[in-house]
Amino acid sequence: MQRKYLAKIFVTVRPSVLDPAGVAVQSGLKQMGYDNVEQVRIGKYIEVTIISPDEPKARQDLNQMCEQMLANPVIENYRFDLIEVESQTGVF
Amino acid sequence: MQRKYLAKIFVTVRPSVLDPAGVAVQSGLKQMGYDNVEQVRIGKYIEVTIISPDEPKARQDLNQMCEQMLANPVIENYRFDLIEVESQTGVF
Repeated sequence: MQRKYLAKIFVTVRPSVLDPAGVAVQSGLKQMGYDNVEQVRIGKYIEVTIISPDEPKARQDLNQMCEQMLANPVIENYRFDLIEVESQTGVF
Repeated sequence: MQRKYLAKIFVTVRPSVLDPAGVAVQSGLKQMGYDNVEQVRIGKYIEVTIISPDEPKARQDLNQMCEQMLANPVIENYRFDLIEVESQTGVF
C-alpha cells in the first residue's frame, strides 16, 4: 500500500547571509510609503506531493531532495511540514 | 505605544495557473531517481517585520503590501500568519 503525502517546504536564507532581494523589496515598500517595515527576508515555499509507503520513507526522500536540489545548504536553511492527504491501494 | 509583528507570508501560484518552475523541478527530481513525486509547486515565503500600533493596522498594511508589491493577484494567492514578537515603547 502506498500513501500520498503533501510536504510544505520552507527554504530560507540563513540569518547570517545577506538577502539582496529582501533589501530591495524593503526599499520598494519604503518608497511606497511603508516606512514601518523593519526587515524583509525572501525565501521559497515549495509544495511537493509524494507517494511513499510510510512517513519515515517520505521524510527521508524529502530531506535528500532538499539537500540535493531544493535548497542550497551553504546559504539556506530548510524545514518542512508533512501531512498525509490520501491513502491509496494498488500499484504505482 | 508601537508593537513589533512578524508576518510569515505565503505567495502561491493559483491552482489553475501553470507553474513552469515547479514542472522543471519535478522533472529534475525524476532524473535524480525520485519518480514518486507527483507534483511540485513553487511559491514564495516572505518574512516581514513591521512596526504597528495594533494588529488590525498591521494586517491592513500587510494586505496592501501583498496586493501592491509582494504578490501578483492575477496569478497568485497569498496568505499570512501574524505574530507579535516584541512590544516597544518610545518614538519610531
